[in-house]
Amino acid sequence: MSTQGNINLEKDLYLRKKAEKYIPGGMWGHMSVKKLPSGYPQFFSKAKDARIWDLDGNCYLDFMCGYGPNILGYNNVEVDQAVNEQRRKLDLGNGPSALVVDLAEKIITLVDSADWALFAKNGTDATTTCLTISRAATGKKKILVATGSYHGSAPWCTPVATGVVEEDTSNLIFFEYNDLSSLEAAAEKAGTNLAGIILTAFRHDVRRDQELPKKIFLKKARDICDSKNAFLILDDVRAGFRLNRNGSWFDYGIKPDLTAFSKAIGNGYPISAVVGVEKLRKAASEIYVTGSFWCNATSMAASLKTLSIMEEKDVVAHISGLGNTLRSGIDQIASNYGVDISQSGPSQMPMVLFKDDKDFSKGSKFVQYLLNKGVYFHPWHNMFLSFAHTAEDLDFALDAVEYAMKKISTDF
Amino acid sequence: MSTQGNINLEKDLYLRKKAEKYIPGGMWGHMSVKKLPSGYPQFFSKAKDARIWDLDGNCYLDFMCGYGPNILGYNNVEVDQAVNEQRRKLDLGNGPSALVVDLAEKIITLVDSADWALFAKNGTDATTTCLTISRAATGKKKILVATGSYHGSAPWCTPVATGVVEEDTSNLIFFEYNDLSSLEAAAEKAGTNLAGIILTAFRHDVRRDQELPKKIFLKKARDICDSKNAFLILDDVRAGFRLNRNGSWFDYGIKPDLTAFSKAIGNGYPISAVVGVEKLRKAASEIYVTGSFWCNATSMAASLKTLSIMEEKDVVAHISGLGNTLRSGIDQIASNYGVDISQSGPSQMPMVLFKDDKDFSKGSKFVQYLLNKGVYFHPWHNMFLSFAHTAEDLDFALDAVEYAMKKISTDF
Repeated sequence: MSTQGNINLEKDLYLRKKAEKYIPGGMWGHMSVKKLPSGYPQFFSKAKDARIWDLDGNCYLDFMCGYGPNILGYNNVEVDQAVNEQRRKLDLGNGPSALVVDLAEKIITLVDSADWALFAKNGTDATTTCLTISRAATGKKKILVATGSYHGSAPWCTPVATGVVEEDTSNLIFFEYNDLSSLEAAAEKAGTNLAGIILTAFRHDVRRDQELPKKIFLKKARDICDSKNAFLILDDVRAGFRLNRNGSWFDYGIKPDLTAFSKAIGNGYPISAVVGVEKLRKAASEIYVTGSFWCNATSMAASLKTLSIMEEKDVVAHISGLGNTLRSGIDQIASNYGVDISQSGPSQMPMVLFKDDKDFSKGSKFVQYLLNKGVYFHPWHNMFLSFAHTAEDLDFALDAVEYAMKKISTDF
Repeated sequence: MSTQGNINLEKDLYLRKKAEKYIPGGMWGHMSVKKLPSGYPQFFSKAKDARIWDLDGNCYLDFMCGYGPNILGYNNVEVDQAVNEQRRKLDLGNGPSALVVDLAEKIITLVDSADWALFAKNGTDATTTCLTISRAATGKKKILVATGSYHGSAPWCTPVATGVVEEDTSNLIFFEYNDLSSLEAAAEKAGTNLAGIILTAFRHDVRRDQELPKKIFLKKARDICDSKNAFLILDDVRAGFRLNRNGSWFDYGIKPDLTAFSKAIGNGYPISAVVGVEKLRKAASEIYVTGSFWCNATSMAASLKTLSIMEEKDVVAHISGLGNTLRSGIDQIASNYGVDISQSGPSQMPMVLFKDDKDFSKGSKFVQYLLNKGVYFHPWHNMFLSFAHTAEDLDFALDAVEYAMKKISTDF
């Protein structure tokens, strides 16, 4: 039973008990609901468009999109058809299908800072490969990384240091996102040994307000790289194709040398990409990165179709429009009930935090009330909108927010 | 046109030229045919059972299985059906499907040294996670690694050092596979700082004869770990479920503490696994590893079906039986033509090398002759047999070998 008592999670809780026996801690990584307030289902049985169902048949209007990937909505018919068509021919051979060339061409056509592309599976594969290419091209070691930014879960970047040794991170120098002097100090510290600077598209760290990058900050990062013969790496794994289909910094006029994509580029099918500028082509061809499944043709078919749809239809406009409606609706409701909240970052990746809520007790209650009304929010991670979300969905969500916010205003 | 002039690779060569424009070096990693003698197609258009087709419609009886994964054959009907059934419900949600528990239970039931399991995407994810768990559990740093063993392509293990910094490998201590005194010396060097020893199931390094592990060597590795409170890691990514469905060292009576699986466990669908013994459950639950797609339910459906088929049918017996037939057939033919060859390692993962062939000129010619006869061999990487290979396929292959070996006997 959930804390709120309204949702029946009987089958979910039963399976969680069984999972404890077979899986360390019952579940690993970001999808473990142990890290969330009670009331969340651990397992899912079905998904379609903007909705997901748990094992007990509860349906939720979802605002996480599988933590990002499902940008066109779950089980998108066109993407699944493209995959099925490809699967009947070939998925994994002794080499890729012709789609690898089409997909590379497509992503290069779309993304402003892409002269070439290669593909992998995890976002972490892509960010790690960006570091390797930077080091290969410069012969230098140091990488500047923003404190608290998530770049994946390899030993060099995992947010939990358990099992990590100091050498895994000894070539990283940390700075504060959007803080020019701290970035300059980090670059100073790297001296003549700076290989690159890696930055998320915007500051989307968990458990705090999101921040769009200051243009002057991106410009400073670009200048440091140019003056020190280092490379600017855009980690666009989480934000890619939600902010701008030409690359998340396109409107800032800042061109990264390397960009890591994943999540949204395959609409849920496993794929990631590294794209880069011409002068890094040689280094990219000289490093050795690979994986047994990096050439799955079905994932490439999914990505090609997903990118084509995003090219044809203005997915970014759709989700940012909805995001603005959702944000102003939530703001209005909070204000009506006199609850102080903070919504930050790009509206297509909503983040709702409560003021004076250091222990997330308000945020936790809020999402629990929403779950009871069939709306799946996250208490401290940015959320995601998809092309499958509709205006009616937002009405449904805002009704639930109204109910939850009213409760919060009396609970606290 | 291929070097031999018999295979038309016109479309393939045309696309390779186009690929050069979009992909650094035209292709990355182990699937780049630039690393192979000319005559190999870079791209594939179709695959079924033990056969693959290139873009120009040439059909090859395949002995690589996509570099391992397709253990039941390409496009296995039962596996694809299980995947399609799952896809209609859910692939990637905000959490896994119930299949994650079924799959963990299944792999634990099969594998002798598995008390728990977690799942990832790449083989490299699994081997890296084994290192992290060993370090988390011991609080120690050093890992013993055999020179030349392939454990993946993360910076700590990639075989090409370009872009790798010394700190990536500074906690590795190297020894020679199957060499007890070199293993002891490495352990000595680690002193009180030994976290683990990682070993491939057998020595399957490229460009040299394969070697099954000496039991006394595995026993020594086990003893060192026990006496130094370190952990024995079996990298079963390449050999897993081809040698023994209970784990590759089951018949040796040596129990690893951690095992990394991938490739064959999903029959081509992207998945890897880490399994371990009870005493490492806590450490495995305390590290943080994850990936956007590690919970794809379709890959888990594929793996569950693949493992179930391997449980029901004796896939290992089938492929080792065929492997023996192939091996003795090739030996006989080579002997008939007076050509000195070496076949090594487990017969279900064939390796055919020529004596006095340091530059692989004989091996290269041999595989080119085979390609012309519609048989896809590898000149210096172990090959793979699948459950889809038949006795008739071997007749076909041996006819081609007869042709190629005769040519080699006159060419050199």
